[in-house]
Formats: sequence, structure tokens, C-alpha cells
Amino acid sequence: MAEEAMFDFIHMEAVSYVFQGGEKLAEDEAVSKLEHMGFATGYRLVERLTRESGRYKDELDIMKYICKDLWVTVYKKQIDNLRTNHQGVYVLHDNRFRFLSHMATGKQYLQYAPRYLAFTCGLVRGCLANLGVTCVVTAEVTQLPACKFQIQVQRG
Amino acid sequence: MAEEAMFDFIHMEAVSYVFQGGEKLAEDEAVSKLEHMGFATGYRLVERLTRESGRYKDELDIMKYICKDLWVTVYKKQIDNLRTNHQGVYVLHDNRFRFLSHMATGKQYLQYAPRYLAFTCGLVRGCLANLGVTCVVTAEVTQLPACKFQIQVQRG
Repeated sequence: MAEEAMFDFIHMEAVSYVFQGGEKLAEDEAVSKLEHMGFATGYRLVERLTRESGRYKDELDIMKYICKDLWVTVYKKQIDNLRTNHQGVYVLHDNRFRFLSHMATGKQYLQYAPRYLAFTCGLVRGCLANLGVTCVVTAEVTQLPACKFQIQVQRG
Repeated sequence: MAEEAMFDFIHMEAVSYVFQGGEKLAEDEAVSKLEHMGFATGYRLVERLTRESGRYKDELDIMKYICKDLWVTVYKKQIDNLRTNHQGVYVLHDNRFRFLSHMATGKQYLQYAPRYLAFTCGLVRGCLANLGVTCVVTAEVTQLPACKFQIQVQRG
């Protein structure tokens, strides 16, 4: 629990620094910086985590790994629901996303939610890149603290 | 181990972002930003960690808490040696500081070491501030990956 707190706090500090602490970036530039930090983190993390596990059967198998093992490692819970159109789009529903769970519910802070999703979008993209899947990851909040991550696989 | 990796990676990303990713800051400004991130993290962390523990007997008792419990929580090891002049100066020796342990030994990268100590200087200062001790924390590397943190208590 203390390690989780460390990760939460340092993530919050990174968000706050990128948005307010340094240069005055436009919102989308700042989001992109955080996404990049997430990417680098995810890329390295999955290398460490999967060092001793076998190969994955297929793309869906990799997505299940993200929803279960990876999510538990990073966020201490599994993704609640995974949907796919079987054409390279995967939607991961998290009913209580940890980085949003400290925010007050209601619409007041909804506009700031993307700041707390950018790192994770990058994290997922970085993990998948390391596992050989090139994709675009976006996130959307419907009702705090629930959100969904959409993965769009880019076919070579 | 995976949580440790997450913390290491996000810390590395924060260092790299502050030094290269955003505005071009002078070295000492960037160090100060990281120190500030560490301070905020430490301040909140210690609040969480000590919620159920009792009061500390005195200043030395607080320092022992930092060297043992806090260090184990954050860095998975204790401080190897604590010295004090009994006049408000405490020196904490870590013979293998985690944020330096991934760096190649030798003098080549020694100049970059302060970047990896700034967050922790802030973390210690934030923890102590929350526990009622105002201080200045500096760090010094002698031989990688060993380093020492010096705490200078500021008397009101």
C-alpha cells in the first residue's frame, strides 16, 4: 500500500509539473509529454515483467495480458471489461481507475480527467509496442472514476 | 519487484523530462524542480505512513524512522549508517543507493549523479517537514553507487 502511494504521488507530481511547473505548454502538448513518459515506462516495464513468460498466442492473448497481469501489477486490480470488434479495436473498461479515484465525482473536475489518463495511455502503448503491437491508445471518461481505454491496432 | 520497477522508471522519466523534455532549464533550476517534486511526495507519503504510529520521542528518533521504515518502504533497504554531531546535523550513508545502482560505476557519469539525488533530498525534507522538523537536505556521491545525505536542521 505504501508502494502504491509512492507511485500515485510521483505520478501526481509529474502531472502537476508538466501542466504547471515548467514552461507554459498548451494542454495537448502537455498531454503528449505525459503520454511519452508513460510510453517509455511501459516499454521498459513490460520487458522486465515478461522476461520469463512465454510468447503470446495472438493479439487477443496480449490484450488479456494487459487487462489482467499488467493492470494488477500497476493498478492493483484487473480491467473490468474487455471488448473487441475483432478488427483491431479493443476497448478496456475500468470501473474505478486508480488515478481518477482520488478526484471528486461530479462534473466539476471532469475537464481535468484527461491529464490523469495520458500517462496510462502511453504506458499501454509502450507495453504493446514492446510486445510487437503498434497502436494508438486513447481514453475517455464517462462518469468518474470510471473510464475506458481504446486501443486501435495499426496494421503494417 | 514490479512495483519497485514502476517507481524507478517513473522517477527516471521525471528526471529525464525535467532535464531534457521541457523548457531548457539551467542545471540548478532543474535540480530544484525535482527537489520540489520530492518534497511534495514525501510530505504526503509520511502522512499516509505514520497515520497509525505514535509520536516520536525526539529528533533522533525521527531520523531513525527515516533511516529504517521510510527507507525500506521507498528503497527496499535501510540506510547503512547514520551519524550525527548532536547539534542538528545528521549524515545518512547509503552504500548502494537504488537510483544510482543502475548507473555505470566509474567517474564517467559521476557528474550526472546529482540529478538522481535531487528528488530524494526533497523527499527527506518533505517527510521531516511533515513531522515538524525544518531542515536543509543535500546529497553527495563519493563512489557510485554509494552516497550520503546530509540533513541540517534549522532551529526556529
